Amino acid sequence: MLSVKTPEEVYEIIQQEFQTLTERTEYVSLYEACGRVLAEDICAAEYVPAFNRSTVDGFAVHAKDTFGCSDSIPAILENTKEIFMGQEADFTLETGFCAPIPTGGQLPDGADAVQMVEFSEDYGDGTTGILKPVAPGNNVILKGDDVYPGKSVLPAGRKLNAQDIGALAALGIIKVPVVSQLKVAILSTGDELVPPENAPKPGQIRDVNSSLVAALIAQCGAIPVNYGITQDQEALLDAAVKKAVSECDVILISGGSSVGVKDATCRIIESQGQLLFHGIAMKPGKPTIFGKIGHKPIIGLPGHPVAAFFITHLFVRPLLAKLTGQMLSEFQATAILSESVEANHGRAQYTGVFLQKKNGQLIAHPIRGKSGLITTLAGSDGYFCIPRDCEGLPAGACVQITLYSVD
Amino acid sequence: MLSVKTPEEVYEIIQQEFQTLTERTEYVSLYEACGRVLAEDICAAEYVPAFNRSTVDGFAVHAKDTFGCSDSIPAILENTKEIFMGQEADFTLETGFCAPIPTGGQLPDGADAVQMVEFSEDYGDGTTGILKPVAPGNNVILKGDDVYPGKSVLPAGRKLNAQDIGALAALGIIKVPVVSQLKVAILSTGDELVPPENAPKPGQIRDVNSSLVAALIAQCGAIPVNYGITQDQEALLDAAVKKAVSECDVILISGGSSVGVKDATCRIIESQGQLLFHGIAMKPGKPTIFGKIGHKPIIGLPGHPVAAFFITHLFVRPLLAKLTGQMLSEFQATAILSESVEANHGRAQYTGVFLQKKNGQLIAHPIRGKSGLITTLAGSDGYFCIPRDCEGLPAGACVQITLYSVD
Repeated sequence: MLSVKTPEEVYEIIQQEFQTLTERTEYVSLYEACGRVLAEDICAAEYVPAFNRSTVDGFAVHAKDTFGCSDSIPAILENTKEIFMGQEADFTLETGFCAPIPTGGQLPDGADAVQMVEFSEDYGDGTTGILKPVAPGNNVILKGDDVYPGKSVLPAGRKLNAQDIGALAALGIIKVPVVSQLKVAILSTGDELVPPENAPKPGQIRDVNSSLVAALIAQCGAIPVNYGITQDQEALLDAAVKKAVSECDVILISGGSSVGVKDATCRIIESQGQLLFHGIAMKPGKPTIFGKIGHKPIIGLPGHPVAAFFITHLFVRPLLAKLTGQMLSEFQATAILSESVEANHGRAQYTGVFLQKKNGQLIAHPIRGKSGLITTLAGSDGYFCIPRDCEGLPAGACVQITLYSVD
Repeated sequence: MLSVKTPEEVYEIIQQEFQTLTERTEYVSLYEACGRVLAEDICAAEYVPAFNRSTVDGFAVHAKDTFGCSDSIPAILENTKEIFMGQEADFTLETGFCAPIPTGGQLPDGADAVQMVEFSEDYGDGTTGILKPVAPGNNVILKGDDVYPGKSVLPAGRKLNAQDIGALAALGIIKVPVVSQLKVAILSTGDELVPPENAPKPGQIRDVNSSLVAALIAQCGAIPVNYGITQDQEALLDAAVKKAVSECDVILISGGSSVGVKDATCRIIESQGQLLFHGIAMKPGKPTIFGKIGHKPIIGLPGHPVAAFFITHLFVRPLLAKLTGQMLSEFQATAILSESVEANHGRAQYTGVFLQKKNGQLIAHPIRGKSGLITTLAGSDGYFCIPRDCEGLPAGACVQITLYSVD
């Protein structure tokens, strides 16, 4: 019998036993790249912007020509060629001259600042009065202010968000190197299970975990592959696992919570590969199995949906991140507990909450109910953990809520 | 000239001027429903579970038969029919009897608790000793504990997450009523713009906003429709807007930041519909235009990518939520500012940050740089706002960070 692991030990095992998969780069278009994991560091190959650019509508000037000017003593500059949007400023601005320029226009050589049109006066005789001084660089984005060749812009392992897509567009990177999505097999087992579309007969229940875990896996950026419900017969499960191992990168066995199924899962892992551990000192989620077949992880999830949810969120998600080299970000919100929560189990206890804003404070309402109840999770915003050595938390305690997602 | 609005006034205008669109329900499969907005309240039509269920492997009993028992004085019960997983317990358990039952098995009529196999002893003569008493309901999920007919499970307007999918599976709801996705037109305008795949000539820059805004719109759950780059000619833009209005639900005009383009956008909105306001008292994002053509919103985004990003995130996202009836959730993380941030503009200032965990505290590093720089956004985790009447915040100040997303 393998000893039960603490959650911290499970994270160590994930880091030690599994390696980031290599040679999984594929190229997708900019429009498909959002949400994917970057496969390579992105460095700029050019200057952005590629020229000095005005940030206002006004006049390109030599800043020193405007020093000391004011409403009463304007700097009088001679007009020269007008600069048009999207066209090259193919001349040099001499001292004493100014050039009308639109927002985004290219500064001519010589010019080092732009004064806004609001602070100018058109004398109608080919000269313009500048009514307020500008310093060099005022109202200008300089060539390479955004990026320059060799500047690191985005690191490998980053899950690309919309802003990152904008940065890639600015660099002209329209084929983006991303990590191929993992294929995650989901096998359900349990003689009591029927697919969600079936009406359960007496003694039967609908298979919740397949849909729940598939949605979680998709949220992780991987591709769930549903293998349906396997009957509780070791030979059938053994064959289903072999097929899944040949077709997918990760195998999840979900649904069977009886001792018989757990024992069969352990035996199958040991016969086809290596059992890493059986049992995590946490609630919910204790009856969890981790193993590997070749280099492929295989995990026996608890049968209770809430326990399956926490195991997938807490451990399968970082495991997938490890395999793809993804950096996970996770932030907590501080909230006040609305009622006391007991925890005298000697195992880390994870409790879902829904959050409510009240008088500028965030209130965490713990969700009660046995771990078989999926509706205790539906509608929850996040969770907090009570460590194994703590007997509970009183109402009013400050807790760190890990959020599932934000819109 | 219409007056500049505060961000709070913009939120009011969104609520007052636009209505939630009706008759937009469509049905998608459970596997496509994650991330979609629920179109109707979901109430249960049946009991889940539909029968009393054991949560452990053990013996179904009458709890009172075990009262007072112990290791030294076991309660001796007669064995009766074994209960199998997924099969009906089609008998009544009489007082004085016990029935072997697996985790998830159906309790027979009469039984009101289950004792774990660990607290039993098989005497081999057709009787079992129970070594520890159980109270009624122990180790049992009762019929309807999860849901019962008529119980409200998920409200209309909720963006469905993985846990919600699990709840729908438990209820057998495999065709999910969701709100049809909005089609959002994205028009870019500006003579200086070239598509990201083109190498900019002198004076030109790549169109960043189309890709950035499209990715943001997709993250909002809507469908971005890219209309490409329109040259800065009012007749061309007018025709492009007419086409977009006929094909989409919302129109965004992005990219042109010069006074000429802004004026043309205002004139086009006024000729085809109604201009609501021009200008928001915030930084970045001041040159923003809101209008409507018929009941369809049309928004002129600022040309600078960072400003376009904030306007889309802060105002277009809640506008789309209003149109679809989606409830938005947004949570803040408390962080310590790593350096001082100035803000003496008389307008609300939004500053992006990247977050770092350090000694258990969250540190917010403000991202500096002019609003034209898309790379100041790439890599950021969220933002905070300095109100218009505040002159800035010192290093060490506690700030509320709104997160863009969590993995």
